[in-house]
Amino acid sequence: TPFHELNFDLPAPSQDTVTHLPQGGSTYPEPVLNLLHTRGMLLSPAAERLRYILGEDDDMPTPTLFTEMDTLQQDGDELEWKESARWVKFEEKVEEGGERWSKPHVSTLSLHSLFELRTCIQTGTVLLDLEGYSLPQIVDEIIEQQVDEGMLSPDLREKISFVLLRKHRHQTKKPIHRSLADMGKASGGGNPLHFLSNCLYVLCCFTGHAQSRSMNDISDTPSTDQLRNKFMKKIPRDAEASNVLVGEVDFLDKPFVAFVRLAQATTLGGLTEVPVPTRFLFILLGPTGKAKSYNQIGRAIATLMVDDLFSDVAYKARDREDLIAGIDEFLDEVIVLPPGEWDPKIRIEPPKKVTSADKRLDSSLAEDEEIIYGRFCGGLFLDIKRKIPWLLSDFYEGFHIQSISAVLFIYLGCITNAITFGGLLGDATDNYQGVMESFLGTALSGTVFCLFSGQPLIILSSTGPILIFEKLLFEFSKNNGIDYMELRLWIGIHSCLQCFLLVATDASYIIKYMTRFTEEGFSSLISFIFISDAIKKMMGSFKYYPINTDFKPDYVTAYKCECLAPDPSESILGLDWSQLSKKECVKYGGSLVGNTCKYVPDLALMSFILFFGTYSMTVSLKKFKFSRYFPTKLRKLISDFSIFMAIMTFVGLDRLIGLKTPKLIVPTEFKPTRPDRGWIVLPFGKNPWWVYLASFVPALLVTILIFMDQQISAVIVNRKENKLRKGCGYHLDLFWVGVLMAACSFLGLPWYVAATVISIAHIDSLKMESESSAPGEQPQFLGVREQRLTGILVFVLTGVSIFLAPVLQFIPMPVLYGVFLYMGVASLSGIQFWERIKLYMMPSKYQPDFPFLRHVPLRRVHLFTLVQIICLAVLWVLKSTVLAILFPVMILGLLVVRKMLDMVFSQHDLAWIDDILPGKDKKKEKKKKKGDKDDTKKKDKKKGRADDSEDEVINVRFYCHQLAGLEKNNSC
Amino acid sequence: TPFHELNFDLPAPSQDTVTHLPQGGSTYPEPVLNLLHTRGMLLSPAAERLRYILGEDDDMPTPTLFTEMDTLQQDGDELEWKESARWVKFEEKVEEGGERWSKPHVSTLSLHSLFELRTCIQTGTVLLDLEGYSLPQIVDEIIEQQVDEGMLSPDLREKISFVLLRKHRHQTKKPIHRSLADMGKASGGGNPLHFLSNCLYVLCCFTGHAQSRSMNDISDTPSTDQLRNKFMKKIPRDAEASNVLVGEVDFLDKPFVAFVRLAQATTLGGLTEVPVPTRFLFILLGPTGKAKSYNQIGRAIATLMVDDLFSDVAYKARDREDLIAGIDEFLDEVIVLPPGEWDPKIRIEPPKKVTSADKRLDSSLAEDEEIIYGRFCGGLFLDIKRKIPWLLSDFYEGFHIQSISAVLFIYLGCITNAITFGGLLGDATDNYQGVMESFLGTALSGTVFCLFSGQPLIILSSTGPILIFEKLLFEFSKNNGIDYMELRLWIGIHSCLQCFLLVATDASYIIKYMTRFTEEGFSSLISFIFISDAIKKMMGSFKYYPINTDFKPDYVTAYKCECLAPDPSESILGLDWSQLSKKECVKYGGSLVGNTCKYVPDLALMSFILFFGTYSMTVSLKKFKFSRYFPTKLRKLISDFSIFMAIMTFVGLDRLIGLKTPKLIVPTEFKPTRPDRGWIVLPFGKNPWWVYLASFVPALLVTILIFMDQQISAVIVNRKENKLRKGCGYHLDLFWVGVLMAACSFLGLPWYVAATVISIAHIDSLKMESESSAPGEQPQFLGVREQRLTGILVFVLTGVSIFLAPVLQFIPMPVLYGVFLYMGVASLSGIQFWERIKLYMMPSKYQPDFPFLRHVPLRRVHLFTLVQIICLAVLWVLKSTVLAILFPVMILGLLVVRKMLDMVFSQHDLAWIDDILPGKDKKKEKKKKKGDKDDTKKKDKKKGRADDSEDEVINVRFYCHQLAGLEKNNSC
Repeated sequence: TPFHELNFDLPAPSQDTVTHLPQGGSTYPEPVLNLLHTRGMLLSPAAERLRYILGEDDDMPTPTLFTEMDTLQQDGDELEWKESARWVKFEEKVEEGGERWSKPHVSTLSLHSLFELRTCIQTGTVLLDLEGYSLPQIVDEIIEQQVDEGMLSPDLREKISFVLLRKHRHQTKKPIHRSLADMGKASGGGNPLHFLSNCLYVLCCFTGHAQSRSMNDISDTPSTDQLRNKFMKKIPRDAEASNVLVGEVDFLDKPFVAFVRLAQATTLGGLTEVPVPTRFLFILLGPTGKAKSYNQIGRAIATLMVDDLFSDVAYKARDREDLIAGIDEFLDEVIVLPPGEWDPKIRIEPPKKVTSADKRLDSSLAEDEEIIYGRFCGGLFLDIKRKIPWLLSDFYEGFHIQSISAVLFIYLGCITNAITFGGLLGDATDNYQGVMESFLGTALSGTVFCLFSGQPLIILSSTGPILIFEKLLFEFSKNNGIDYMELRLWIGIHSCLQCFLLVATDASYIIKYMTRFTEEGFSSLISFIFISDAIKKMMGSFKYYPINTDFKPDYVTAYKCECLAPDPSESILGLDWSQLSKKECVKYGGSLVGNTCKYVPDLALMSFILFFGTYSMTVSLKKFKFSRYFPTKLRKLISDFSIFMAIMTFVGLDRLIGLKTPKLIVPTEFKPTRPDRGWIVLPFGKNPWWVYLASFVPALLVTILIFMDQQISAVIVNRKENKLRKGCGYHLDLFWVGVLMAACSFLGLPWYVAATVISIAHIDSLKMESESSAPGEQPQFLGVREQRLTGILVFVLTGVSIFLAPVLQFIPMPVLYGVFLYMGVASLSGIQFWERIKLYMMPSKYQPDFPFLRHVPLRRVHLFTLVQIICLAVLWVLKSTVLAILFPVMILGLLVVRKMLDMVFSQHDLAWIDDILPGKDKKKEKKKKKGDKDDTKKKDKKKGRADDSEDEVINVRFYCHQLAGLEKNNSC
Repeated sequence: TPFHELNFDLPAPSQDTVTHLPQGGSTYPEPVLNLLHTRGMLLSPAAERLRYILGEDDDMPTPTLFTEMDTLQQDGDELEWKESARWVKFEEKVEEGGERWSKPHVSTLSLHSLFELRTCIQTGTVLLDLEGYSLPQIVDEIIEQQVDEGMLSPDLREKISFVLLRKHRHQTKKPIHRSLADMGKASGGGNPLHFLSNCLYVLCCFTGHAQSRSMNDISDTPSTDQLRNKFMKKIPRDAEASNVLVGEVDFLDKPFVAFVRLAQATTLGGLTEVPVPTRFLFILLGPTGKAKSYNQIGRAIATLMVDDLFSDVAYKARDREDLIAGIDEFLDEVIVLPPGEWDPKIRIEPPKKVTSADKRLDSSLAEDEEIIYGRFCGGLFLDIKRKIPWLLSDFYEGFHIQSISAVLFIYLGCITNAITFGGLLGDATDNYQGVMESFLGTALSGTVFCLFSGQPLIILSSTGPILIFEKLLFEFSKNNGIDYMELRLWIGIHSCLQCFLLVATDASYIIKYMTRFTEEGFSSLISFIFISDAIKKMMGSFKYYPINTDFKPDYVTAYKCECLAPDPSESILGLDWSQLSKKECVKYGGSLVGNTCKYVPDLALMSFILFFGTYSMTVSLKKFKFSRYFPTKLRKLISDFSIFMAIMTFVGLDRLIGLKTPKLIVPTEFKPTRPDRGWIVLPFGKNPWWVYLASFVPALLVTILIFMDQQISAVIVNRKENKLRKGCGYHLDLFWVGVLMAACSFLGLPWYVAATVISIAHIDSLKMESESSAPGEQPQFLGVREQRLTGILVFVLTGVSIFLAPVLQFIPMPVLYGVFLYMGVASLSGIQFWERIKLYMMPSKYQPDFPFLRHVPLRRVHLFTLVQIICLAVLWVLKSTVLAILFPVMILGLLVVRKMLDMVFSQHDLAWIDDILPGKDKKKEKKKKKGDKDDTKKKDKKKGRADDSEDEVINVRFYCHQLAGLEKNNSC
């Protein structure tokens, strides 16, 4: 019959009424109208059926299915079942020749095989809830059924049974000693060269792939091969197996098809590669010559079995028709690639995210949000309440190897910072606060903060604005004859009280007005400062150690530097001037004469090599995680310890070459930098009484400064994309910052506030990723190791650095500047602002598929970025002047600029670029979404398969946030 | 009607007999047997139909189709057609909000929409070969047809016509002045901030995306917007358009569908974005509420129209049924992705290769092979015959910007080599051959070779073995009182004659025995030597310029180096010893005393920075081609000139710092290095007569040495993956090498032979890629700019380097060593051996999907690699001794080792790893394949869609060679 005269039906036109088209006539038939009719209202019979069976006991989740496909193969004289593919979520094929597993890939099926499978289920034997305890018994039952129904001639009974009970050979790894034994056997009487080659192989490779055989009819307990199989850890504990057996035999003239669901999942001997009990069995035996076709049908059923929806159907199906409805539903959702645009031989890598995982995430975020609203009073108590349940886990969760690397990394960052700022503070305050005070203050404040704060991932540090304030304050005191330390103490006390006031009034509420615009502006500015400081300090070494560029190797005899006595006749001290060192010479009033006096060879270039080497090695090692070499764990370790390894390497190189590069020198004695000050500052006695009151005014500036610095850094740390579980504690944080202000003032130590870049580095070094996932599934970012241990250790180590001096003195400063450069660059990357800057240089066709680019015209995006750049440039310029003290006010300026942008950009555009989702609207949307969910309960059952409703604003937004993971955290 | 009672048919079960299943009964129906019956023998009616229509005039290729989909949209009060997607080969969507084109991606369709489309074609109006000259007329014809057939009520005539003739708006780029004007208009009376923002935007971005509108009923000539459209260059010249119009209207209650093929492709006003005449028109208007569904149907037909096979069908279809058969055939080949494993929202990047392109390649390679066999005599004449047709193109094809970069790069490589080898030769031969001779010889030999040789891409150079030979020869002559230059002349003459003999006897035939094993062994060895030499030379600067690691900046006064007279009393010359330079001091017998005498500051470290900087900058810039920044052309330019830019940068840096790093110094005077030799060596007079004859023996060694070096390098250059069009010329090459041997001997210049690494670099710098391809299609590697111009220029420049000395003296040697390092590393990468070494360090699940890994067990691959490594290690050790002179013999040893591997590895494994495809077998297979082709002519018509016959050995092999592009060239 010619094809065009046949009836043609849609296999699964779900969501539409099923239509039955008449033979390709010339009139416009009614059914087409239905076909093109509104979708989503009417359900197809298939979908209706599924709704019914899946709705029954929705609460009990079905186990994960592991599917193994074995094909019948001739091994010498014997028939055996050989594993040819397996599925946890994605397909892994046994490469025949390569004797290895392929990479996990998305199963690409032919439409044909799916239809053939449908026919198989339609016409074969379907046994649901069979009481099965061993394979022979199950096989017997199937055969009986077929014989009873007249589908199988009784004389084939034995033959079929014989074939189905052949032993199974699995593709597994085995330990090396067994591989060796195998090789000995394999090359037995054969070629000696062959044996030699095998031995050579064993010498150079560690494990062998091989195949294990097992009789499936021997035992019900898992075999040793099964138990040893390392693949088991990739399969969830509660998993059950579905076994697909396909093959061709010469005695059949029509296919023998059976689909079996056991009443109880049962271990059927060595049927499965792993010790997982079997629940489903699909058997397809057919006449010879069509192995390829059977194989494709086997792959089709296997793919269906690991499909979320179909596996549910398979568990709950009441009859054959339910299964077919499941296939039809699957077909309806299938994605089709045109043959001319895609080569079916290409194995498609599993996608980064499959939707189901997303949905789960979505709901967890939603829970977070529930807590948020209506908590605008008594924030401090809520913070404490939120923190108490985590008290214990805040410590034991710190015990992980990753913490070691984090501690070393952050420790080095902190002491470098302490030394740098200590030096600068010493200069600014005539050593009233020096390196020693800086170390002590860092250790004290950090430890206390990490112990008691709301967000222990935040690292406290000295910051630029505070430094400038101290400088101005010291000059003011000196010029007006006011005692600096006492004045400072009073400012600290006032500021502390002001902080308490801010805490009590829940002033941290202001952070709700900070959008991505402000937050990014602040953090990129701080990052740029970090980067520029690192480079500046590095470049400084070219000034400290000037290079004699005129040096001609041949004229080495002409280079010298001599110390000449000020007046040759006046050598009062009877010094041998020529024996004096440079410093001594200058000290005793001698003059240095010669063409090498002002030059220092090699040190500048060596510093550059150390600086740049540390930076680039860290970057390369960090990237190593994504390379193909070595096992995942090792790569992760290398990546986690990249900074440590880079530091060690270049410390080693520095030692090896032995040049006198500038080293990290920490104080070794516990005493104030300035001998005439003690460890306690007394509040009264040195200044007139009105100073105690007037210090309220400068304290106000300090408070604003500290408040802004602290809270913006905290916002950045608490960003939603960091997936913090333990919540934030803005009020508690501020409380402790206030307490520490007062404490440090009494002890005459510098003041501390959250340091953005180091805090980000802290978080980055504590990121967790999921480990055991289905083969091919991308590891998911799970969150951050939120605990207090690493922070505490860092600051305790800082405190005892005095004793670590003998070790620390080997670390050249340029190496640490390299680490600083890395910190700055790392905290910049991952900021959307930075991504948008890059867009300027990309032709639009190469731009990444950012969600906001799909919805906002490029010129608007560019404009937004430009405004940010200009703001940053202005801030940068101001920051370089004495106005830096007004830095917090400038941040408020950013908020104003952002407000003005509302006039330039539409709210739609801002929603995409700046992530504004005002609290109330969001809540409403959530509710609406929930309503939707209830309406389409069945739809939801399809665990997160993307629906087409991209146009609906709610979904668009949610999609945006999920996809980009760029959502701002305005949750506290 | 419940679904399970409906008939169920396969939409397109091609290659099987079509079957008609009865209602899901309980007996095993006969049709299922057919379903599972042998594939490939019987054709479905759909396929049969297609075979018939496509077979008619197979010779005339159908034009490429450009498809544009416009959707009906409300713009204010007006309806208009807005372009929403386009296809050249892949889909590009208009991002509504983003006002931009998406990246080209593979169209992912839903199965549903394909079935709906099928129904549309089945039931709608199909007008084939309509005489159409304007859109209104065509629309009238369609409406008439529908009214005639009673499908459309006559009173809707006007309305439909009105809608279909609305103007079309296209998504196009436009020049900046127009964008500005638009902005002025847009913000007209509105917000001044808005206008400001637009201006700001214009200032920072160069082009605007905007939309152009056009009336489709005005003119038949292309509008300026159309002509200006830059997208045109992505569309082949002969292309025709197919326009898809879909939309919803409120006056229809059933869909209005039409598929039109015009008798002549006609420009229908502004219907299409580009000035391409329209051949096909698909119209779908339907009742409101189902826009999404219509959209999907529109995408489906558009995807079909750009499908190779379906577009053929569309051009040749005789009736509606042919079109449906085309859809069915398409459905049968469709690739299906399971919904749970893939998110349909992910846009699939176009694959690197689509099969059709492959097949074309395949046939062109096949032609090459035809020439090969049976050409084992008179190879020289065949070489010449093959080269003559390219004589002119060998020159004019050199005129390209890429050539400039190639010339600069190779020139610098050549002179560095000339200087290095010149220096070494000078040392070895007591300056009988020095730097001057080296330059002259390089220039002479290179120019002659590039002018006349068979493979002008080969670069001649001095090589290590020759250097060692000269050294031994000079020592022998000196010790035995034989004149070196005369002896050398006679060896040259003998060697030249021996080469001629080898040419005459077609000895180059031996290269047929070189498999990947030998070839890779040789080329990696040479690459390693390059790399190690570069590093050694760099490290040498730490010896030349020792660093004073004990230097303490403070004790600068203690460092000096003085020249002391040998005996203070004996200052005969009245010299001021303290004024003498180091060299002078030593010259006059003074002694250098002091702690800085043996140190040179800064130069070693600076050299290292220059060396490493040049290397890493070159590598990064080379990679820049694959980045997302800047337009393709600019990136290609940067990548092409990467070496030049890196050299310039570091020459600049060196100048900036001003240190006296070692510079490239070329001879500036044209005279022999040794004053007592002239430019011509006379053959007689200095040695006894028997020396003239006896020199035959050393000449034999030289000949073997030259022959092996030359021919293996040539094999590597002529590799099939380089896709050379102009063929090889092994015999002609050897002839000229022989001639040059003699010539150089007469002139007393060094001998030259093909240099592997520099030749590879030459080829790499001349690679061409296709420029205008369909959006999303990967640029194809087209081959190499095969011409003589670059080579000639390089050597002419080398010759005139004497005059370039003032420029060249700025180039520090470490920079050039960096270039050498890059050359060595670049020639290593891309060698399969190197890829296999990397496999050692990769867990098998991360290994790339190399074809050989699918077919050869990993342990066998590892073993093969291990043998190669051992061979290489042995060669490396030998090479480092005086045995290096036996280097060519060692290469022969490699051939022996390879022969022994036949005993260890199966031929199957070797076919995959070592690419053995002996000529005869290959030919046979080709024939067999041809036979297959004839059998399945229809299959072939599906332009290269991959068939399933992976198991067949022939296909496996061809697949392997295509996929990996790793085939060895044994063609000459």
